[in-house]
Amino acid sequence: MDTEEKPSVACIGSGNIGRAWAILFAMHGHSVNLYDISKAQLAAAQQAIATNLEDLKSAGLIKHTKTVRERIRSTTDLATAVSDTHYIQESVPEQLDLKKNVMKKLDSLAEKTAVVASSTSEIPGSSFMADLPGRHRFLVAHPLNPPYLIPMVELCPTPWTSNDTLDVALNFLTACGRKPIVVKKEISGFVANRLQLAVLAEAIHLVGEGYCTSTDIDVAMKNGLAMRWAFMGPLETAHLNASGGYKEYMALFRDCHKKITDDLQISYENWSGDVTEAILEELSHTTPIEAVPKRQAWRDRRLMSLAGHLARDVLKFGP
Amino acid sequence: MDTEEKPSVACIGSGNIGRAWAILFAMHGHSVNLYDISKAQLAAAQQAIATNLEDLKSAGLIKHTKTVRERIRSTTDLATAVSDTHYIQESVPEQLDLKKNVMKKLDSLAEKTAVVASSTSEIPGSSFMADLPGRHRFLVAHPLNPPYLIPMVELCPTPWTSNDTLDVALNFLTACGRKPIVVKKEISGFVANRLQLAVLAEAIHLVGEGYCTSTDIDVAMKNGLAMRWAFMGPLETAHLNASGGYKEYMALFRDCHKKITDDLQISYENWSGDVTEAILEELSHTTPIEAVPKRQAWRDRRLMSLAGHLARDVLKFGP
Repeated sequence: MDTEEKPSVACIGSGNIGRAWAILFAMHGHSVNLYDISKAQLAAAQQAIATNLEDLKSAGLIKHTKTVRERIRSTTDLATAVSDTHYIQESVPEQLDLKKNVMKKLDSLAEKTAVVASSTSEIPGSSFMADLPGRHRFLVAHPLNPPYLIPMVELCPTPWTSNDTLDVALNFLTACGRKPIVVKKEISGFVANRLQLAVLAEAIHLVGEGYCTSTDIDVAMKNGLAMRWAFMGPLETAHLNASGGYKEYMALFRDCHKKITDDLQISYENWSGDVTEAILEELSHTTPIEAVPKRQAWRDRRLMSLAGHLARDVLKFGP
Repeated sequence: MDTEEKPSVACIGSGNIGRAWAILFAMHGHSVNLYDISKAQLAAAQQAIATNLEDLKSAGLIKHTKTVRERIRSTTDLATAVSDTHYIQESVPEQLDLKKNVMKKLDSLAEKTAVVASSTSEIPGSSFMADLPGRHRFLVAHPLNPPYLIPMVELCPTPWTSNDTLDVALNFLTACGRKPIVVKKEISGFVANRLQLAVLAEAIHLVGEGYCTSTDIDVAMKNGLAMRWAFMGPLETAHLNASGGYKEYMALFRDCHKKITDDLQISYENWSGDVTEAILEELSHTTPIEAVPKRQAWRDRRLMSLAGHLARDVLKFGP
């Protein structure tokens, strides 16, 4: 956490994603104008933020909650929110007309040099940024939740986004300790959700056809594959799987890879209600629906602890 | 690590996988008979084991290297190797005729009550276990490497494997701190390699079509998705993504999931030489081929550190 005074930023929308962005920016020394349409929503967001900051403090990830909390100011006035800010993160609900409307207002109200990033995960940026007079300064910055714990952010420019806009977003998010990647052309699900869906689809096939249980899928990942992916990713893992590197690995396992890849069943056709019910029933043994909030708190503690571990290990062993 | 005297086990084959199994079993208090066809190979294996044990000690995962090392005895005599052992792990090279030949010998030499597990990853167990008189006591136990750091083991019975055999393997590996899963029917790649290939295939598509770089793929995973998968797996992640659990999450994101899943390009056709060269070139910026061994040592230190962290966090926060 940095305590130096830094430029103000705006977070438009105070739901799960918007307020998590606000925490990130405030942790990194920025004053944040948090906007929403009602005072009640903003009050609820500030309460949730206070709880999250206490958790971050307990995990040793911030020193003082008060300093960070006081940097986040609520407002229901959009002009006030964007006034004097150089970076604006939009996180309103995923509805095309709403996004269009909000973006139009932001383009007219924001400083002419400000960059506007959308948290959209489902709606392509080009479908609500195309008609804006200032469309060169708009792009997508899609996080995994919560962005103050998970560093990866997907930046996806539209065909009209300027290189300067992309650079500003890259530099700003990097300075906030994030690891932005650039999705050079629009594609459904960007990168992360495509990789996630590839795993989910084959997992559902395997459980649906009775090869293994859903617990087995999670064990194969958490006690297996993800122990390498959590610090290397899949391509560096492959590069280090043969003494001759990636190309040798791909050649050595060519037949095996082809056989398995040709046999994968990545199809939404497999996602029937029956397999959903079966997976739900099994997951409910560990976490019944009523215990989900408690288990979410467990998840957040585990995630904070893991984020701390990974950051320390990068310093200790090198990136 | 347990210091109590426990039943002897046999490791057949002293390559990367065989000697890593030997380390695991010895760490958990078992005397291990490590077999290979030449004294030179066994001497090289013992040297590698000594180095690995020093690393494990440095990482705080074992207290004394000598106690563990002395439990691993080398032999070039197969009858001696399996004599008086209740569990035999076969890890000879992946050649069908060799596997058939070794399994036949093991069936005739081993104690009648011993269970024989094969580390095969590519060759289905049924193709070299079917004709054995004692085929009921044979099965596949496929690890990710090294099994003394990565707990997940895939157990895959053949159609002739008895329930008792599966139970013995499950109990023995669980007592060695492993997390066995059961692949109930034979399938190419079992579970872990299928999930791995699903990710690799979509990653290669995205890089090959210029959507992102291979570095971006690894960042999306290590600084993103795998931070949740490393302690929950993908299905529990989904269950906790909505307050109403898995079924609600699947319903909320139905359209989004269908759109992305239908758009995935999981095909070996994309794995051309050009994309392999492009990925290799990019990976070589960080780790040129000549630096692979040094980077592998980095990987092993990171993996030991992560394995320690995850095990401590399970104790601290609950599994």
